[in-house]
Amino acid sequence: MAQTWSVYLSGEIHTDWRERIAAGISEAGLPVHITGPVTDHASSDDCGVAILGEESSGFWKDHKGAKINAIRTRTLIENADVVVVRFGDKYRQWNAAFDAGYAAACGTPVITLHDPGLTHALKEVDGAALAVAETPAQVVEILRYVIDGVLPETA
Amino acid sequence: MAQTWSVYLSGEIHTDWRERIAAGISEAGLPVHITGPVTDHASSDDCGVAILGEESSGFWKDHKGAKINAIRTRTLIENADVVVVRFGDKYRQWNAAFDAGYAAACGTPVITLHDPGLTHALKEVDGAALAVAETPAQVVEILRYVIDGVLPETA
Amino acid sequence: MAQTWSVYLSGEIHTDWRERIAAGISEAGLPVHITGPVTDHASSDDCGVAILGEESSGFWKDHKGAKINAIRTRTLIENADVVVVRFGDKYRQWNAAFDAGYAAACGTPVITLHDPGLTHALKEVDGAALAVAETPAQVVEILRYVIDGVLPETA
Amino acid sequence: MAQTWSVYLSGEIHTDWRERIAAGISEAGLPVHITGPVTDHASSDDCGVAILGEESSGFWKDHKGAKINAIRTRTLIENADVVVVRFGDKYRQWNAAFDAGYAAACGTPVITLHDPGLTHALKEVDGAALAVAETPAQVVEILRYVIDGVLPETA
Amino acid sequence: MAQTWSVYLSGEIHTDWRERIAAGISEAGLPVHITGPVTDHASSDDCGVAILGEESSGFWKDHKGAKINAIRTRTLIENADVVVVRFGDKYRQWNAAFDAGYAAACGTPVITLHDPGLTHALKEVDGAALAVAETPAQVVEILRYVIDGVLPETA
Amino acid sequence: MAQTWSVYLSGEIHTDWRERIAAGISEAGLPVHITGPVTDHASSDDCGVAILGEESSGFWKDHKGAKINAIRTRTLIENADVVVVRFGDKYRQWNAAFDAGYAAACGTPVITLHDPGLTHALKEVDGAALAVAETPAQVVEILRYVIDGVLPETA
Amino acid sequence: MAQTWSVYLSGEIHTDWRERIAAGISEAGLPVHITGPVTDHASSDDCGVAILGEESSGFWKDHKGAKINAIRTRTLIENADVVVVRFGDKYRQWNAAFDAGYAAACGTPVITLHDPGLTHALKEVDGAALAVAETPAQVVEILRYVIDGVLPETA
Amino acid sequence: MAQTWSVYLSGEIHTDWRERIAAGISEAGLPVHITGPVTDHASSDDCGVAILGEESSGFWKDHKGAKINAIRTRTLIENADVVVVRFGDKYRQWNAAFDAGYAAACGTPVITLHDPGLTHALKEVDGAALAVAETPAQVVEILRYVIDGVLPETA
Repeated sequence: MAQTWSVYLSGEIHTDWRERIAAGISEAGLPVHITGPVTDHASSDDCGVAILGEESSGFWKDHKGAKINAIRTRTLIENADVVVVRFGDKYRQWNAAFDAGYAAACGTPVITLHDPGLTHALKEVDGAALAVAETPAQVVEILRYVIDGVLPETA
Repeated sequence: MAQTWSVYLSGEIHTDWRERIAAGISEAGLPVHITGPVTDHASSDDCGVAILGEESSGFWKDHKGAKINAIRTRTLIENADVVVVRFGDKYRQWNAAFDAGYAAACGTPVITLHDPGLTHALKEVDGAALAVAETPAQVVEILRYVIDGVLPETA
Repeated sequence: MAQTWSVYLSGEIHTDWRERIAAGISEAGLPVHITGPVTDHASSDDCGVAILGEESSGFWKDHKGAKINAIRTRTLIENADVVVVRFGDKYRQWNAAFDAGYAAACGTPVITLHDPGLTHALKEVDGAALAVAETPAQVVEILRYVIDGVLPETA
Repeated sequence: MAQTWSVYLSGEIHTDWRERIAAGISEAGLPVHITGPVTDHASSDDCGVAILGEESSGFWKDHKGAKINAIRTRTLIENADVVVVRFGDKYRQWNAAFDAGYAAACGTPVITLHDPGLTHALKEVDGAALAVAETPAQVVEILRYVIDGVLPETA
Repeated sequence: MAQTWSVYLSGEIHTDWRERIAAGISEAGLPVHITGPVTDHASSDDCGVAILGEESSGFWKDHKGAKINAIRTRTLIENADVVVVRFGDKYRQWNAAFDAGYAAACGTPVITLHDPGLTHALKEVDGAALAVAETPAQVVEILRYVIDGVLPETA
Repeated sequence: MAQTWSVYLSGEIHTDWRERIAAGISEAGLPVHITGPVTDHASSDDCGVAILGEESSGFWKDHKGAKINAIRTRTLIENADVVVVRFGDKYRQWNAAFDAGYAAACGTPVITLHDPGLTHALKEVDGAALAVAETPAQVVEILRYVIDGVLPETA
Repeated sequence: MAQTWSVYLSGEIHTDWRERIAAGISEAGLPVHITGPVTDHASSDDCGVAILGEESSGFWKDHKGAKINAIRTRTLIENADVVVVRFGDKYRQWNAAFDAGYAAACGTPVITLHDPGLTHALKEVDGAALAVAETPAQVVEILRYVIDGVLPETA
Repeated sequence: MAQTWSVYLSGEIHTDWRERIAAGISEAGLPVHITGPVTDHASSDDCGVAILGEESSGFWKDHKGAKINAIRTRTLIENADVVVVRFGDKYRQWNAAFDAGYAAACGTPVITLHDPGLTHALKEVDGAALAVAETPAQVVEILRYVIDGVLPETA
């Protein structure tokens, strides 16, 4: 009756890194429950006004939406065993760094995932992480090792 | 194996808002476990003396009852993922505001539900909430979006 | 080198109960540091827009103000040793009940202060309090006893 | 014997916003103790290797430095009553967003400070803040109101 | 999918109060999981030396046993939703009062169960409890009301 | 600038053990701030009704008093660095055992003080203590060693 | 529906003590879920570089590996009901003592397991433990007693 | 009115590393309050029996002493802003590793201090530290940088 690990995938929503991690986890047969933010960009932007009514100001439209998204994201991050935070080279992705800080303060292990070119800009975030990965496959290998104690064959 | 969300419904007991939220959740097929206080007014008032014996003073009758109710309400609020607090235009409903403060201090997301006419009187409570809804249907839509990532069709 | 007790006075802002408690504390020479919300009604309502700019909607004006007030109130409540919550018979005072719930969840002792006529409406809040007083003088006597161990002479 | 408020100033290190807030606080005579990260860019980058020895890899140079900086920043953020987070339009400033998330998870009030042009990119961070300011003067006014209850004269 | 309530029964081990509560819960069909200390007196006294080896001093025999018992009792009390503490008129039962203090500091609701004759001696413990019962049947009724919202018929 | 240690003295109020500890601390010149409950028995019993008005029932008289005493005792116990709990051979002293449980759950070091004859009855409480003393002088020696690192000369 | 106890086995990886505890638990039919670190020495040493890439420095190779191992160990220790820490007479096993300190600070019951010859060297760790065992069989007996209340027959 | 930093120095008691750090802190004029265990070996071993009476068994002599030492060490570690843990090449120093684990679980920044030859054996402890120093001078430089933002001149 092994524990199911809850892994929250935070950050970049414009590439397929979540799908690649999910596929890797599935292939490895790991007892992992994947969670994350709503990744449909339009829905994430519009949720506040779509549900609670239009706003004339962009600031309050964003505000209403961000808070509804927070009901989901904070609940899931607080329930997570591991938080993976992905930074891409586009967009500022301050919400990803915010999530990393939130998870770190909760004492939840953080794995960052980004290209080496972002190393210097992300040094504080990486400094708070327990692993810094460059590929989704590495994240899967970390989870496989952490959960099942198995290393990649070529290692 | 998605998480079941525990949603506590606090406040007004004289209208059918709980039933409308429950029906909406059921219709949307959301994995939500609804909890709340004992909503039978007479039982809620009498529980102390009915179980533990009569009191000559109204103050202690109320006190005994309130504390037994607290065994239920605090346990369920502390276990809740989301607390919805409904304010109607009748009665003072200080217990609803108390529950909102309790949930806020626990870091549990709060959704308030009230008519726009109460906005000014409720500004501190709304300020601590992650969403301010006017109708039970909006609460259901928030939960549907938060849990399933789906917005209302007409949005 | 006795401890200075920090006592937060929450609630009603239209009567002189704070001044009466402060005078009683001063007269009794108690090592108490009194804190509380901004009690100038207009300032409390306007602070958001006065500092951060006007809003066309009353809702957001209230929201901006309530959150700035929360910077003060939550910080001081979390730092308080005792929270006194005053309910008058005018206004709904949901923020007072909210503060009581917030303090209760923080484990901070709560003293309520209200007329007997409000007992039934406040039973849940009183049930979470460690004392229910009817007069500011009683609050002072409680603090004097709690801090100095001295009871009123006529007792 | 009023409380001294500890205010941590996080984020942008290339403009004079910290000095302007400090000057405003001083002018207003507020009992505020200002803290923040080491703001000398070169020192902040080099501290790890300057103290603990050179690294051949940029990654580990950054890592050693970031962790030493974290001894300072996390200690001061956890001790802060208010965290002000400044976002400029240059650099990615993920560490500022990380600090905001860290403070939010600690339950410490956050004030963000940025131009309106960054509103959409910062919506999640702003959504977790209790105030969103555009100028250092507004931050000072918020602190003055929160601590002394005084609004700007023209308000 | 209602919550199962975990109820810890602390205190007196020489009467059948636990069995009576268990029977009442069973009869009422409540979703309650009952826990408690090891109630075989000899085992509770001897567990330390029986497992870890004899001691020449009574003090250390007791000490070894008490700490092994604590592995069980503290774990179960920390996991409990409600702690019922029974005081009889024999023995000093300091462990029961210790458990009540432990539960109170954890924020877990406490129900005390004792004869009215012990009221004055137990006033501090009762003051920290959310209900003070005189009979096992009352404890069952409290749990039935708290969980199912149903009061005794004759009430 | 050595730390001042706050030491709470809980339990028996009918012998001079507090005075003896205070005298020993004073003689040893230790930086200790002693706190404790109100030790005037009549005041402790009467405080509720003396301040908040008479009760016709002994139960509620005790209840009102116990809760006012709790404002003092819980605040001081939570602020204490060390809690000393004294058990005498008279009275049941359930409140002392309650305080020990409360302190233990808070993670505050507990020192018990009692005659060897009570060892078996107090085994659970002693099992949670970091030291079990028989005389006030030993408590002073423990504090002297813990604070100043000095052992008794004859040792 | 008894609780399943999660028991983390920390420390020595070169003898069969884990297998002996597991066999004993299985034989006794206890509802225990055993967890622990990755016990394959080579994998535990190599995991960082095997997954995330080679390092030229031994220090950083160890560092990367230790942090990935920490994702597993801290998560499982924080989820454990009981932590058993085994010290052998070879190797320094600082990680075992680290785990004991971590568990103690989390308030999780610790059982140490070591030969009497290590008693003096381990006195601080044993002082924080709730039981000090010399054999795996004793650990099993402790768990059997703690969970099922049954002592060894010959006792 | 800068913060005074409390720095706990744990571990090795047979070399002068504490004195060297203290001298360096003094020379640098840092606002640091140094704490630590009792470093007189004989006192630390004997404190239990010297104060509370002889034991015939070495195990209980150690146990009594270790628990009295824990009153000091845990209190000071929990109050520390930074914990420095020194490992020498003699003795097993499990208590040092225990302290590191304890501090890590409390979220307190840890600096380890040891020769490079111990790197592999200490990899888990170093992995939880925010800095790994080899000399007392480096610890002083870290504190100087963390507190005053000043790097060594030759850097």
